[in-house]
Amino acid sequence: MRKIWYTSLVLVLIAVIVVACGGNDEPTPTSEPPVAAVQPAGGQIAQAGAGALPAAAMQVATDRGLTPDDIRAALMTYTPSGKWDEYLSFMSGGHSGNIIVVGVPSMRILKSIAVFTPESWQGYGYGSNESEEVLDAGNVDGNKIRMGDTHHPALSETAGDYDGQFIFINDKASARLAVVDLRDFETKQIVKDPNMISNHGATFVTPNTDYVVQSSQYGTPLGWDYAPLSEYKEKYRGLITLWKFDRTSGRLNPDESFSIEVPPYWQDLCDAGKLVSDGWGFCNSINTELAVGGIETGQPPFEAGVSQRDMDYMHIFNWKKAEEVFKAGKVEEINGIAVIRMKTAVDEGVLYLAPEPKSPHGADVTPDGKYIVVAGKLDPHVTIYGFDKIQQAIADKKWTSDEFGVPILDFDAVKVAQLELGLGPLHTQFDDKGFAYTSLFLDSMVAKWKLGGDDPNGYQVVDKVSVQYNIGHISVAEGDTVSPDGRYLIALNKWAVDRFTPVGPLLPQNEQLVDIGGDKMQVIYDMPMGIGEPHYAQTIKADKIKAWDVYPEVGWDPIAQAPSTVATKIGEEKVVSNGNTVEIFMTAVRSHFTPEHIVIKKGDHVIWHITNVESAHDATHGFQVGGHNISLSIEPGETTTFEFDATHDGTFPFYCTEFCSALHLEMMGYLLVQP
Amino acid sequence: MRKIWYTSLVLVLIAVIVVACGGNDEPTPTSEPPVAAVQPAGGQIAQAGAGALPAAAMQVATDRGLTPDDIRAALMTYTPSGKWDEYLSFMSGGHSGNIIVVGVPSMRILKSIAVFTPESWQGYGYGSNESEEVLDAGNVDGNKIRMGDTHHPALSETAGDYDGQFIFINDKASARLAVVDLRDFETKQIVKDPNMISNHGATFVTPNTDYVVQSSQYGTPLGWDYAPLSEYKEKYRGLITLWKFDRTSGRLNPDESFSIEVPPYWQDLCDAGKLVSDGWGFCNSINTELAVGGIETGQPPFEAGVSQRDMDYMHIFNWKKAEEVFKAGKVEEINGIAVIRMKTAVDEGVLYLAPEPKSPHGADVTPDGKYIVVAGKLDPHVTIYGFDKIQQAIADKKWTSDEFGVPILDFDAVKVAQLELGLGPLHTQFDDKGFAYTSLFLDSMVAKWKLGGDDPNGYQVVDKVSVQYNIGHISVAEGDTVSPDGRYLIALNKWAVDRFTPVGPLLPQNEQLVDIGGDKMQVIYDMPMGIGEPHYAQTIKADKIKAWDVYPEVGWDPIAQAPSTVATKIGEEKVVSNGNTVEIFMTAVRSHFTPEHIVIKKGDHVIWHITNVESAHDATHGFQVGGHNISLSIEPGETTTFEFDATHDGTFPFYCTEFCSALHLEMMGYLLVQP
Repeated sequence: MRKIWYTSLVLVLIAVIVVACGGNDEPTPTSEPPVAAVQPAGGQIAQAGAGALPAAAMQVATDRGLTPDDIRAALMTYTPSGKWDEYLSFMSGGHSGNIIVVGVPSMRILKSIAVFTPESWQGYGYGSNESEEVLDAGNVDGNKIRMGDTHHPALSETAGDYDGQFIFINDKASARLAVVDLRDFETKQIVKDPNMISNHGATFVTPNTDYVVQSSQYGTPLGWDYAPLSEYKEKYRGLITLWKFDRTSGRLNPDESFSIEVPPYWQDLCDAGKLVSDGWGFCNSINTELAVGGIETGQPPFEAGVSQRDMDYMHIFNWKKAEEVFKAGKVEEINGIAVIRMKTAVDEGVLYLAPEPKSPHGADVTPDGKYIVVAGKLDPHVTIYGFDKIQQAIADKKWTSDEFGVPILDFDAVKVAQLELGLGPLHTQFDDKGFAYTSLFLDSMVAKWKLGGDDPNGYQVVDKVSVQYNIGHISVAEGDTVSPDGRYLIALNKWAVDRFTPVGPLLPQNEQLVDIGGDKMQVIYDMPMGIGEPHYAQTIKADKIKAWDVYPEVGWDPIAQAPSTVATKIGEEKVVSNGNTVEIFMTAVRSHFTPEHIVIKKGDHVIWHITNVESAHDATHGFQVGGHNISLSIEPGETTTFEFDATHDGTFPFYCTEFCSALHLEMMGYLLVQP
Repeated sequence: MRKIWYTSLVLVLIAVIVVACGGNDEPTPTSEPPVAAVQPAGGQIAQAGAGALPAAAMQVATDRGLTPDDIRAALMTYTPSGKWDEYLSFMSGGHSGNIIVVGVPSMRILKSIAVFTPESWQGYGYGSNESEEVLDAGNVDGNKIRMGDTHHPALSETAGDYDGQFIFINDKASARLAVVDLRDFETKQIVKDPNMISNHGATFVTPNTDYVVQSSQYGTPLGWDYAPLSEYKEKYRGLITLWKFDRTSGRLNPDESFSIEVPPYWQDLCDAGKLVSDGWGFCNSINTELAVGGIETGQPPFEAGVSQRDMDYMHIFNWKKAEEVFKAGKVEEINGIAVIRMKTAVDEGVLYLAPEPKSPHGADVTPDGKYIVVAGKLDPHVTIYGFDKIQQAIADKKWTSDEFGVPILDFDAVKVAQLELGLGPLHTQFDDKGFAYTSLFLDSMVAKWKLGGDDPNGYQVVDKVSVQYNIGHISVAEGDTVSPDGRYLIALNKWAVDRFTPVGPLLPQNEQLVDIGGDKMQVIYDMPMGIGEPHYAQTIKADKIKAWDVYPEVGWDPIAQAPSTVATKIGEEKVVSNGNTVEIFMTAVRSHFTPEHIVIKKGDHVIWHITNVESAHDATHGFQVGGHNISLSIEPGETTTFEFDATHDGTFPFYCTEFCSALHLEMMGYLLVQP
């Protein structure tokens, strides 16, 4: 439907651009990642003379007051143009409701993945049917929840090692989980647990990602029905939910998922057993006091009421046994999900408790699966439990029971060792050399300590390093797997205070990169985080992730991860009217949309499909239309759909929002809504 | 209302924390910014020996394959822990609808400032009345627009220099402007132009920030009423709007603002005159062809139709004269704003045109105010116009007229020089040594060239550097002022392609830092931008900004920038019921909210005030409540209010979302909604 003269002009223009760019818009294929650290030195440095800093660089270091340690840190982290980072750290964004992807060691933010919160740059939650459907699945009782509080990302695992295929994350505020596909780094699914309203021990995965697990945090009646706090012990409960993951479809399957009812302690953080302890899971808890607050009526506030006892309880659960119990039908369906009631869990040997020192915040399984390390924030020690000791105590029935009838294993029978680290121990990670690393919130330090196996005297602190300030979680490269890499540790500090150029009363956090490759730990980079508040991170070798450069076919549905049924080819664009419904099949290519004029009537319902027909790497087109709350990002090959009712007549330009070519500003059209 | 035993426990806990932290939660006051580059070297480097790279660092450089240039670049950009960046670059986020604040030279993101798009980490647009009111002022015909396409930030100026007080930014998609206060880096006002629906030549400020100016981009009927494209010439128009800024209130005042009607060319980018040219403004335009697209019916598409003529028109307008015309009442009020009609603008000597080469994208005034540099994307030259030549041509009436009756000044009479730079020249910035820098989109280069004053032969290219890839705008430190700093240039590249570890089909942009301090430009840092697509940036000396560490008083209203009328003091917390309205006056402090139990009935309307009573730097508290779409960030001293209808009965925990203390997880309470 185009005139030949126009086709020629376009060809000439494209030729001009391609020649002018020297092929810049489709550079060298990137199958060989140019990782800086494995790049052969090739004698490039030699020309500066062995050990000699180039004179120009020397002057810079002097002018800027850099110390020898600073120089080493700069050279450890600086990643030259075109070199790739070796690791990707996936950090939760906290109450920004997203995942933030950071390159390591450069500590540069490569992408924010919108999960629970709409994000207009990515076109997520701004009109596209695909993203609205993902978000709507996380509605709570019909309320559109368009934010979240992401805490603990979990990479999918195969045999206890990150496999780079998926990442899962929780929303603490409303007890939801999400699935992100690492082929395109986009959120594909959100599920809402129908019985809990807050979670915290989420997400963690079993070693082959059979299940993605979450535990509730603050006790509520099941389904968070109303019940007065005076009935806390009777009516309030906790839950551990095992969501079955289907790797082929890339979805959590609620029909094969189930929950375990637990006491209304505040379950905190969890970890899955691995290798020898595969089949088991471990969750800390606080508020074994069953405190209900009430400072306004003279009751102890939560912070005090929850902190009265010296010991809380680690929850130890046998998820393979629980799966059997579920499959045997020994469950009750509550709000559409199967629940193993607490008594069943106890009777079937699914659930046990073990005492753990005060206000724990991490239960971390060692890479060999043999030990569980618990850090109690209000106790200066870490406590190491032996998995075989736990099994022996269970076999020997060395237990008492809590007030809900759950067995409490004998502390001395399950404990291997306690090691004093400092004030406020919080979270532990491991390296490949037999060391553990624990964050110390109150000391603002990281402690490095030697694992001692079954020998209680074999555990010892070997190093400490100060961080700035108030460290929460830590992430060691491949640190949650059966084979950690060591090398790098990221300290997720909560306060930055004086670290960065002031930007007002709301400060960034400070994520510090720590070199753990040598005997002494060294902070080598301060990374401000001014777009969220990471709680936890997992850090993976970048080359494990096989991300797509472009979608596999032009006309791709990124939710189905399959060819779209409403894709439009060049030359087949059309507008179909049916009563007051208008359906538009549009293409986008540098540098025009087809069609360019959309003429409709006020009151029409519009269904608008756009296919980005490009297959060039990075040739993304965006879309916004004035006066409408619609923002799309259409990556090469993608087909997307949005719908709206034309409530206002008028003249509304639409245009490409990604600067795609020299004629990008001209990539526009008009939505004309007749009165 | 609290028991004494509890007070004691809290005091003990606080004491433990303060001692344990070694004062970490309130470190050394930061009145002396520890800027790395002005830090005395103090012989620290000397211990490594003059010119000698410390052995450990040498090994790192060798292992990582760093070249001498890489080493110098690393040392120029690495900013050690606790040292501050010297400059802040305020980058538009593009279709993320925000402003991204980046430290220079480290190129670290310090903060994203939410402007047109809600952002839950900052608690902007997630329930707080203050932010909802700011956003609602930007609604379009009653449609809640909750995204934007930010393009051109403008820092407030005093005598043509950035003064660090405010920053303004536009939303291209819906023709809106926003005001951000740089005391707290928060958006205070959004205004919607009632007559235009897209803008692009926005924002720019007059040299004392009397006005914040925007020009429309795509032509529409005034008020974007419906009119067919066949009536483009008759009914479609452009506008240049001058928004009066009141520095005391920090607000744009629509009553003292006015527009100038201009032809329906697509006005593109603008700049204000300064010093000798103060009182004037300059805007590029494209589509002087009045093309209306229509590829689907065999018409030339916009990209071709808009690019037919060799010359477009720079709009030259006398805003001081326009202000006189406005004050004299020679205006027509259209949709509530005063408009100087095109004929009046011509008759009163407010508006002129000058030919400019093909598809211009930058009109940039030199620091001395004497010249305007225009870069035409489809012409390999920049064209330099003389302000005195323009004045002379006007005085001499050396003009013809366009089809709308607007004078077109004689090209040769106003042109000083043309200089061939390369393919796709786009935007020009200046340094302190008499050089200009122009981005070359198609060449993917920056050209450095010498300004030649009135001598047409004095202009010459002196250097070029390649960037990766498809460069858009550039930002030189203090580059839009009467006294640029030089030193650093940031290349805002549109495509990254192979530069970074792959993260799927949607790639980050690549913002490259270029050292322009020497004779040869050198790219010294690649910064991925994975949270937006910056179009333009302004870069200011960080010490010009006097940001608050905490709000001036406890109980502060950040919109009024004054004490809040609904602030709550410790001990004065209360819940007031009046019919089915429940009003809550709550305080937040480490580590509890007061009250902790909110008991209401289904159907109640809730008005909830929270005051963060802390005055410690960085002691921010967040707030979310399960099942509700509410997310707040309450900085030290701030009082905030949110409202909602209790539509569901149930038990909903609320909690602090900022990890504020060791007992942060315990900082929670229950919203109990009785059936």
